[in-house]
Amino acid sequence: MAIMVVGSVALDSVQTPHGSREASLGGACTYFATAASLFDRVRMVGVVGTDFPEQYLDLLRSRDIDLAGLQILPGETFSWSGRYGVDMGDVETLDTRLNLFSDFHPVVPESYRESPFLFLANIDPDLQLEVLSQVERPRLTALDSMDFWITGKRASLTRAMSLVDLVVLNETEVLMYSGRSRLIDGAEAILDLGPAALVIKRGSEGSMLVTRGGSIGERYFVTPAYLLPAVTDPTGAGDTFAGGMMGYLARTGDLSVSGMRRALVYGTIVASFTVQGFSVDALRNLTLDDIAARYRDYRCMTLYDPSPCPAGDWLERPLGRNTRAGTN
Amino acid sequence: MAIMVVGSVALDSVQTPHGSREASLGGACTYFATAASLFDRVRMVGVVGTDFPEQYLDLLRSRDIDLAGLQILPGETFSWSGRYGVDMGDVETLDTRLNLFSDFHPVVPESYRESPFLFLANIDPDLQLEVLSQVERPRLTALDSMDFWITGKRASLTRAMSLVDLVVLNETEVLMYSGRSRLIDGAEAILDLGPAALVIKRGSEGSMLVTRGGSIGERYFVTPAYLLPAVTDPTGAGDTFAGGMMGYLARTGDLSVSGMRRALVYGTIVASFTVQGFSVDALRNLTLDDIAARYRDYRCMTLYDPSPCPAGDWLERPLGRNTRAGTN
Repeated sequence: MAIMVVGSVALDSVQTPHGSREASLGGACTYFATAASLFDRVRMVGVVGTDFPEQYLDLLRSRDIDLAGLQILPGETFSWSGRYGVDMGDVETLDTRLNLFSDFHPVVPESYRESPFLFLANIDPDLQLEVLSQVERPRLTALDSMDFWITGKRASLTRAMSLVDLVVLNETEVLMYSGRSRLIDGAEAILDLGPAALVIKRGSEGSMLVTRGGSIGERYFVTPAYLLPAVTDPTGAGDTFAGGMMGYLARTGDLSVSGMRRALVYGTIVASFTVQGFSVDALRNLTLDDIAARYRDYRCMTLYDPSPCPAGDWLERPLGRNTRAGTN
Repeated sequence: MAIMVVGSVALDSVQTPHGSREASLGGACTYFATAASLFDRVRMVGVVGTDFPEQYLDLLRSRDIDLAGLQILPGETFSWSGRYGVDMGDVETLDTRLNLFSDFHPVVPESYRESPFLFLANIDPDLQLEVLSQVERPRLTALDSMDFWITGKRASLTRAMSLVDLVVLNETEVLMYSGRSRLIDGAEAILDLGPAALVIKRGSEGSMLVTRGGSIGERYFVTPAYLLPAVTDPTGAGDTFAGGMMGYLARTGDLSVSGMRRALVYGTIVASFTVQGFSVDALRNLTLDDIAARYRDYRCMTLYDPSPCPAGDWLERPLGRNTRAGTN
């Protein structure tokens, strides 16, 4: 089932301890669309300038991403540059130029209006509301946001969150919006606005799904990030997490809570590939087979009862009897 | 199978946002023993002064904990006092009085010498080595340590870690000992010393098991903490985590990797009860049935493929079709 995504398409300049890139393909909408297109058909709504490289458009088209809603206007594309420190934690923004994006108003093409899945990436919540008014009863609507709108457009964001089915925020944003110090309390405050579920992105700690009612274990699903030997560039991890998640939901059509939980895991897997390269590089040649293989390894990393790991010699080898212990 | 534990028995004075306690039963050995005794027989090795309340000894005896190795000497018991801030994160130590503990030398009673499970709680690594020289081929030996010994007695700690089967440290200690900035690298550096496995305690983030060889998912097991609406006092969480883990291993005798993974989860469950009360209060009347019930809920909180949660109305209720969305 087709997924429509609205958000920023950008040219990113990124520095990390592993290298740097100039004017590479970026933006929340781009990252989301590239990830979701691994699973299902994607329709983009956004804006770029005439400076936007044709090769980037070709890359998106090569993934069967529908660009009917991508406005190409005279002027310059939104650009962002940032630098990550050694621990790849908080990014330092060096420059943000909204350019054409500052006057952006999303226009949903007629051919998109009945998209069953809608993701409102991190943009001005007033624009998210504009999009919600242009669509016909999607099966699932979701939104992302950021600190800038939480402080600057709280009322609009609150209204947008109350209208969607699924809110996707990171841990800091949940605490900031709710004014609570415990994540669990912040999560409840957001669910109280009306959405059926909340997904909390927690970076290298993984993610959490919060649904309604039941015991702690029924209400909260907590799952770690896939462990990687090294991270090349964290940019786009959150957006490709959302893209993988929504892509899986659209592909399976499974909107049960257990389907949602697996969707978070697929998002986790896709994001783990994203951060292994700059821009969307690591997603370009990725296949569903690659994703399935890492999903199997992730199961092995997280499951315990029963353990899905193959019972091999090393796995069943007793841990004890270190022959050097008890050397009296 | 009996578990022998060596470590501190203390009188703790603790302040948290939820209240305070004076001279309550504390110490790593005590916490570990109380937790492990939920699963199997425990033998303590430690020292207290004649000021140590008889009621605390009675409490330990009431759990069938063998106190033959607990020296009761003229003088004062090790005492510690600390204060937790609002977020229950880093504790501020207000006072530490080693008292009799400063001259402590563990003596393993003859009746303990063939204990199949041995846990060396956080004490001077030279004392941990003394204990290792007094035991006869345990089936599993494990140790815990702390920053103080990592910086002050690095050579002895290194030797002790090379002699045990299982090292248990928290995340900060792994990074500090290894001098690495990524946990995964620090973990490998510790496994290179010789232990068959490393357990990394991560506080409210849960824990991780690192074993040898295989894929990422086979080598690393990552599991979150149980989510709690509120924490009363985090003191003893790490020691009761270790106690629950070792207790489960001793009770089942299952030293396969999958058995170890479940042991971490049982440690997680026991620790989650510990922090819901001061001292060992929350463990006093706890039963294996209580643990099993929370284990089931923890499975529900963490598992996804298949989900162990009962398929009820609310669980299978579609997330989508928020009737307020698409209200054009």
